[in-house]
Amino acid sequence: MGLELYLDLLSQPCRAVYIFAKKNGIPFQLRTVELLKGQHYTDSFAQVNSLRKVPALKDGDFTLAESVAILLYLSRKYKTPDHWYPQDLRARARVDEYLSWQHTALRSCCTRALWQKMMFPVVLGQPVPQETLSSTLADLDSCLQLLEDRFLRDQDFITGSQISVADLMAIEELMHPVGAGCQVFENRPKLAKWRQRVEAVVGEDLFREAHTVILKVKDTPPLDPAVKELLHSVRSLLQ
Amino acid sequence: MGLELYLDLLSQPCRAVYIFAKKNGIPFQLRTVELLKGQHYTDSFAQVNSLRKVPALKDGDFTLAESVAILLYLSRKYKTPDHWYPQDLRARARVDEYLSWQHTALRSCCTRALWQKMMFPVVLGQPVPQETLSSTLADLDSCLQLLEDRFLRDQDFITGSQISVADLMAIEELMHPVGAGCQVFENRPKLAKWRQRVEAVVGEDLFREAHTVILKVKDTPPLDPAVKELLHSVRSLLQ
Repeated sequence: MGLELYLDLLSQPCRAVYIFAKKNGIPFQLRTVELLKGQHYTDSFAQVNSLRKVPALKDGDFTLAESVAILLYLSRKYKTPDHWYPQDLRARARVDEYLSWQHTALRSCCTRALWQKMMFPVVLGQPVPQETLSSTLADLDSCLQLLEDRFLRDQDFITGSQISVADLMAIEELMHPVGAGCQVFENRPKLAKWRQRVEAVVGEDLFREAHTVILKVKDTPPLDPAVKELLHSVRSLLQ
Repeated sequence: MGLELYLDLLSQPCRAVYIFAKKNGIPFQLRTVELLKGQHYTDSFAQVNSLRKVPALKDGDFTLAESVAILLYLSRKYKTPDHWYPQDLRARARVDEYLSWQHTALRSCCTRALWQKMMFPVVLGQPVPQETLSSTLADLDSCLQLLEDRFLRDQDFITGSQISVADLMAIEELMHPVGAGCQVFENRPKLAKWRQRVEAVVGEDLFREAHTVILKVKDTPPLDPAVKELLHSVRSLLQ
């Protein structure tokens, strides 16, 4: 068995991994793990990733979790073009810096924005207090400002003139609140132009395909009560 | 001006960077940024890291934030021994996997354990509800179990038979609750033996020196009221 990628395109790092593999022509079997059906809690998925998170990779007898580790593994194994994870010492450090920062910054804000603005109130029918959502949207705004001022600066992409895995991870974070109906790019021309550049490199068709799920998330059919219960139990993590 | 490292050994990732640089004989100027004096909020430090976090690196006109990025930059620039960040595809992926996972798992638990058990009640004189602390210690216990079962397994170190930057980052997380008086290693013989192995590689003197601050944190002299106020304002992040 060749490379298998366990993904749900509802998840932002899964979309980054999916786009990276597709764009680079890396052959893989897509194993869809539907989070909203609780498929990450099955015993069979635990064999691939005992952390019960997607994305996860299986390459023969080797399994790997964590999107950053998966992207770097794929870039090395398949020798993808240098710009994705540049050999240049300083450019590579810039990618690593962004990939570290995002875990507790942009990832947290964008996940909470999706769940508080869309998933809990619309999909699950569980209202979220206005002050909780307002606080999250303020955090999101601060993170977007940092993305502009600290990481993107006056460059075309995060590391300079070419796209890297950092841009892929970042755009996928931002498409999360977009899926929830947030106006992420409207008053941010610098980010809007950067998005256009990323989309142009990825390609319109692949970009559209990768976002089918998140951009239609409000139309999610009613969830199984057991999964609803499970999601309710992790709600405190998303406040 | 050569390499400058902006550190406070109160911070777990700063200790990892400090030990890594010292152990590998990397020449650097230590620039101490005392977090408990609010020195990360000064304008001069913002020139080095506008994110206002330590560790930070300055190498001539190049500045870099985020401990993971700094460790990898140092390993590449100074060509440190392979085992710290192995060339082998799978071993390197294991290091990357741990370094990604820890941001929102072990880092979060260990930081909260230190602040809730020691910094707020003992150093700042601000009690923490017992149920908050109990919940944090339960999270910590789960994370320690994952560290054993998922990452360390039956190996001497996280990637196998040799120490890597993942072990350095992990041991420094665990020394945080140790500094708060938690019994991290007492009922975990596997972790206790791993700690001994890490300590043996690092060397007793360097290990002791790097932990002087955290192991005496309960004796921190009274803080400036302005810093106390500042720490109080970020308290919600540490609950």
